[in-house]
Amino acid sequence: MTIKVRDIGEQGLLEKLQRFCPPEMIGDDAAVLVTAPGQSLVVTTDLLVEGVHFSHVTTSPEDAGWRAAAANLSDLAAMNALPMGIAVGLGLPGEVTVSWVERLYQGMTECLQKYNTPIVGGDVVRSPVTTLAITAFGQADPNRIIRRSAAVVGDAIVVTGVHGASHAGLQLLLHPELRQNLNDAKYKTLIKAHQRPQPRLDVLPILWAILTSTSQLPTPNSPLPVAGMDSSDGLADAVLQICRASDVGAVLEHRQIPFPEAFNRWLTEEQALEYALYGGEDFELVLCLPTEQANTLVEMLGQGAAIVGTITLGSQVLLHDKYEKFPDRILSLSQGFQHFSD
Amino acid sequence: MTIKVRDIGEQGLLEKLQRFCPPEMIGDDAAVLVTAPGQSLVVTTDLLVEGVHFSHVTTSPEDAGWRAAAANLSDLAAMNALPMGIAVGLGLPGEVTVSWVERLYQGMTECLQKYNTPIVGGDVVRSPVTTLAITAFGQADPNRIIRRSAAVVGDAIVVTGVHGASHAGLQLLLHPELRQNLNDAKYKTLIKAHQRPQPRLDVLPILWAILTSTSQLPTPNSPLPVAGMDSSDGLADAVLQICRASDVGAVLEHRQIPFPEAFNRWLTEEQALEYALYGGEDFELVLCLPTEQANTLVEMLGQGAAIVGTITLGSQVLLHDKYEKFPDRILSLSQGFQHFSD
Repeated sequence: MTIKVRDIGEQGLLEKLQRFCPPEMIGDDAAVLVTAPGQSLVVTTDLLVEGVHFSHVTTSPEDAGWRAAAANLSDLAAMNALPMGIAVGLGLPGEVTVSWVERLYQGMTECLQKYNTPIVGGDVVRSPVTTLAITAFGQADPNRIIRRSAAVVGDAIVVTGVHGASHAGLQLLLHPELRQNLNDAKYKTLIKAHQRPQPRLDVLPILWAILTSTSQLPTPNSPLPVAGMDSSDGLADAVLQICRASDVGAVLEHRQIPFPEAFNRWLTEEQALEYALYGGEDFELVLCLPTEQANTLVEMLGQGAAIVGTITLGSQVLLHDKYEKFPDRILSLSQGFQHFSD
Repeated sequence: MTIKVRDIGEQGLLEKLQRFCPPEMIGDDAAVLVTAPGQSLVVTTDLLVEGVHFSHVTTSPEDAGWRAAAANLSDLAAMNALPMGIAVGLGLPGEVTVSWVERLYQGMTECLQKYNTPIVGGDVVRSPVTTLAITAFGQADPNRIIRRSAAVVGDAIVVTGVHGASHAGLQLLLHPELRQNLNDAKYKTLIKAHQRPQPRLDVLPILWAILTSTSQLPTPNSPLPVAGMDSSDGLADAVLQICRASDVGAVLEHRQIPFPEAFNRWLTEEQALEYALYGGEDFELVLCLPTEQANTLVEMLGQGAAIVGTITLGSQVLLHDKYEKFPDRILSLSQGFQHFSD
């Protein structure tokens, strides 16, 4: 017999989910965390709705859980914060199986354990649509928080990895016929990019080592020379958001945007570019920093990391093709997915 | 023309909501907060779903916002934490009006401003059902955190105010014919108890002053002599949860449970008792502490505060009527609302 959440109720479900939480976190109205002395608290929230952000068709509960956790850890990484814990609010229709919920938590925990991050509390309620609300907490040195608003003219724009892979994986799951012309290894790489994205917390110690060794540490007279955010809503969105917050423009070089190797001879150049710019959910970091440090960072990261452009005066984000096959193009947010159009 | 959220999109809506947030909190992937030295971070999450936790029939957007904020501040109060901020995740169907969302934020802000608590960030996404995910952050002295698990045999059980008023207000909104035999003042008191509940953050300085002046401060050898939680799921639930977490039982005295004055000659004794025990959402605190301090606390709080029972050996929560009109009754969680039964 398949047990559904309506069979065991909120209390019964909470009891089953307790094994995913550290025992000291259980049983009170709120969870208690301790930030290290001198560290600031960094907080980020995501709401994920079935049918909008994940689907039973393309996403197992384990993958939905992993992706939700990864998205929030990625937001912390984007600000140079070390994860401390996440709180999970879960809205469920009565007919969801208890097993589905346990598998969701299993996936979340798999991702979180890689980064020693506990689930520190939450809420389980009835809802007509499965909804996952995650709030992640991290701690950061207040002088070393990476913000969107700190880009300056002349900065190199670094991406920490390839773009478009997650969206390609989603398209393959939605339209299996697209698999033609893709070998197994490439297929699996793209699917995995969609199902198991990796938050780039690994970039931060490397970035910090480079800044330290080149005397780019922030002081009262020289703030942190790095701006950035993650590319969860696509590369174009990230660059546009940084430019808007920093009151600058940018030139992106089409031929330097790193695509997954699988895109060669599978997608057209136009498709590959659209996936990379607007596909989203690659969860790479987009960082603006001085060229010398940018070069070192790209070299040390390898694996698709690249300098994709430069911060400029003005407010336009221009996409340029050095081969001049494609005309110059001004990027805008409105080319991205419309979130409220049903 | 009525503007709907689908007309302005996620970005447009976020821009409209920014006026409810402090300017320094806007624009990054995450918000940054600073806890005072030596303070722990206390975190609580609530998920509220339209049709389950609030309804357009009984609740204006302002009231829904107020109630959501109050519920989370109440969870912080229950642990003796001072609010620092809340993060708001909002799921919205495209046809919701922008005005509705602004009024929701207006109500949240009205409640939060009473406690100097900013909205520090959030997320706005499309959802088939209006969903509100709130995570509240507070700070607390780690030695002074009130937990459910610290009740000991002999403790007096204090409630900080009357119970059943919020549920009565809801019933009046759902069934206007119940208003017979209630004068205007009483009607308004009950409606307001439902629409504008007050988190009892005001209790904490008083409690702390009493503990300090009677040398009940926690030391390494004597932990905090207070257990507690809030009564958001009803008085019975609060006492049962405390007893379970503390591995003790309790005797509640029927005649000491404080009801709203409006219940006299309006509800039967049975109804009044059920509303108080299982109605929920009164957001009072239920505190277990030594009798001497309990008496002082009740005296200082006034306004419906009362000692309603005693912590006992065992695990049963017994309801006793000193007039012996009602037989003794063992309370259980399963008498409360079933959350997943549709």
